[in-house]
Amino acid sequence: MGDIIVQKYGGSSVATTEKITNIAKRLIERKKTDSKIVVVVSAMGDTTDDYISLAKDITDSPDKRELDVLMSTGEMISASLLAMSLKSMGCDAISYNAYQLDIQTSGSHGKSLINDINISKIEKSLEEGKIVVVTGFQGLDDRGDITTLGRGGSDTSAVALAVKLNGKCEIYTDVDGIYFTDPRKFKEAKKLEEIEYEEMLELASLGAQVMHSRSIELAQKYQIELYVGLSCSDIKGTYIRGMKNMKLEDKVITGLATSDDDVAITIDVDEDKVVDLFENIAKENISMDMISQTAPMNSKITVSFTIPKEDLAVAKEVVSKYALQGEVIVDKDITKLSLVGLGMKHTSGVASKVFSILRKNGIKVKLITTSEIRITCAISSEYTDVAVREIAKEFNV
Amino acid sequence: MGDIIVQKYGGSSVATTEKITNIAKRLIERKKTDSKIVVVVSAMGDTTDDYISLAKDITDSPDKRELDVLMSTGEMISASLLAMSLKSMGCDAISYNAYQLDIQTSGSHGKSLINDINISKIEKSLEEGKIVVVTGFQGLDDRGDITTLGRGGSDTSAVALAVKLNGKCEIYTDVDGIYFTDPRKFKEAKKLEEIEYEEMLELASLGAQVMHSRSIELAQKYQIELYVGLSCSDIKGTYIRGMKNMKLEDKVITGLATSDDDVAITIDVDEDKVVDLFENIAKENISMDMISQTAPMNSKITVSFTIPKEDLAVAKEVVSKYALQGEVIVDKDITKLSLVGLGMKHTSGVASKVFSILRKNGIKVKLITTSEIRITCAISSEYTDVAVREIAKEFNV
Repeated sequence: MGDIIVQKYGGSSVATTEKITNIAKRLIERKKTDSKIVVVVSAMGDTTDDYISLAKDITDSPDKRELDVLMSTGEMISASLLAMSLKSMGCDAISYNAYQLDIQTSGSHGKSLINDINISKIEKSLEEGKIVVVTGFQGLDDRGDITTLGRGGSDTSAVALAVKLNGKCEIYTDVDGIYFTDPRKFKEAKKLEEIEYEEMLELASLGAQVMHSRSIELAQKYQIELYVGLSCSDIKGTYIRGMKNMKLEDKVITGLATSDDDVAITIDVDEDKVVDLFENIAKENISMDMISQTAPMNSKITVSFTIPKEDLAVAKEVVSKYALQGEVIVDKDITKLSLVGLGMKHTSGVASKVFSILRKNGIKVKLITTSEIRITCAISSEYTDVAVREIAKEFNV
Repeated sequence: MGDIIVQKYGGSSVATTEKITNIAKRLIERKKTDSKIVVVVSAMGDTTDDYISLAKDITDSPDKRELDVLMSTGEMISASLLAMSLKSMGCDAISYNAYQLDIQTSGSHGKSLINDINISKIEKSLEEGKIVVVTGFQGLDDRGDITTLGRGGSDTSAVALAVKLNGKCEIYTDVDGIYFTDPRKFKEAKKLEEIEYEEMLELASLGAQVMHSRSIELAQKYQIELYVGLSCSDIKGTYIRGMKNMKLEDKVITGLATSDDDVAITIDVDEDKVVDLFENIAKENISMDMISQTAPMNSKITVSFTIPKEDLAVAKEVVSKYALQGEVIVDKDITKLSLVGLGMKHTSGVASKVFSILRKNGIKVKLITTSEIRITCAISSEYTDVAVREIAKEFNV
């Protein structure tokens, strides 16, 4: 008997009864090699959005407790249908919800955290040869009220179950894996065979929407191997795992994210006013990124940073109060290029290699910030394609 | 502080968010005079039918446990929306489901019986001034699996709660009360101010679809007063209550039901074969009614009975084997006229009064059966309107 397999199917994967039937067929096939399977399901297709508009029909600010009650029914529906489908094909199955598994959560409605899950019913049902179907996305707080985990929370439900059951976790969705860079933007983007948790988290923070970040953190914490792949397909997906389980010869760069959502602002400012400036921008809930500044010269320093495009008007108003001579330079022609890779930790000169690739192709780096496993450059948008292609080539990804 | 009021709203009454909002408004108004209100809701409109077709998409014979999981979500949706609506109008409210109230059931999925309800959460919430919204139609069996009570089961949920809370029960639906006879068939039918449990049960058995019979039996057992009326309306409905709470001067006849769904069969049969004949008809799952027979003459007796129209072909096949000379007389021109009233128990000559009314109007009684509180006559369909009108007039209803 092998490991317990915890599979998770997202909303688009269970959007129709036909898709549910297909999943059931593949589960029955899979059970021949992996006898113990737990399946976590999201709500069918647009159910969650439908519920939100139903609630909005009632009131603009629905009570959060009751909204969670409403939301939680979506997963009960898909779980019952999948169990029904399996049973109709002669495969014993049973669905369980948050009450039946005592999925304990804390925190507030709509964004609760899983504290614990009672797996005794699941273990018993697995022993009896059943495929166990579990409602994702939901739990119960200490008052016995239903809570939901927030958008994408079913990923976290699946990882939490894999932790408790000491199993492997497979996330099935509508993309066929994790790519070096966004395949919708760059056709030649290569799919990764594996990626380390930290790298995946960094990519997720840069906008990769494939998985819920919390689920990756949880998997990392308990070293649960994740697999991300296309549902009902034989196309090979991507493993998300710990360093010690990865190939020894690690790639320096694993992922590259691009973003056109920001603008760069540059001003001269009195050195005593810089902190003040930053505080006032923060007060407007504008997130600054890629902050860089020159050394003071005659108590004047030059500061550059990026902000989201949609915040430009408000930011300009704040910034202009601090700019010497009132001069604010705005650069709207900005693409952020973020390279992510654990290999950077141990490989020196990654940044300089990136600069040299860019310079060789006549690309000017407007701003740069680095962290332990990430380098972000702001370049002119027209060079994005060239930059991505050349970096991928040079770093052999 | 007055009695606890348990209200129940059926599927058509909560079919849209607009209807739910209207119910919330009326509840807030009602709370000014009755401070403790519990509301039981059914699933919105056609939700139950939608779920059934979803399940049928998956399989022709859905697993009953999983079907109950699916079904139970409908009431969770409407309960959360009503609680949300109340809260959005500034009235504190909370929804509870079968798990939270530990609504214990026994019996099989899809037709379970309520054993008990833990009302501590309800009592606490009522003390806190909240309107409590409860999911009807559902409970949990001793394995913690969701069960449903069968179609119309929310009526039973409401009565059960009224029993446990020692309250009054109001059933709101899309009809404005109980009528002497079906107002869709007889425009001049009068609405009853009150009706006794037994009478209501008898009318329900004759096809009055207003309430779930089990809920009436439960109300009778614990002497819970029921009110049936139109939701969100000031039109006065009908009370269903025990004899001792009714007006002293009781009406002899409370209700009159008519049915055109049957045909009458008459045959001559050997007296030794009668039991055999009845058994063979029962084997075909055909329900016989209004059986009457003559005394044997030369070991031959004449037997008449009614059967549902749709069973005629099968019944004729069975019957013709027993009919002497193979002669089967079928009368398709049959309307069953059933008079119901507790008053019959104590008033002699009701049957003869009915006959005399019918005879006076030239109406021949084809068959007749009586029970303690019911008289059923089969007459020719063309006389139905006259018969109903004249009986109502003579018995002053």
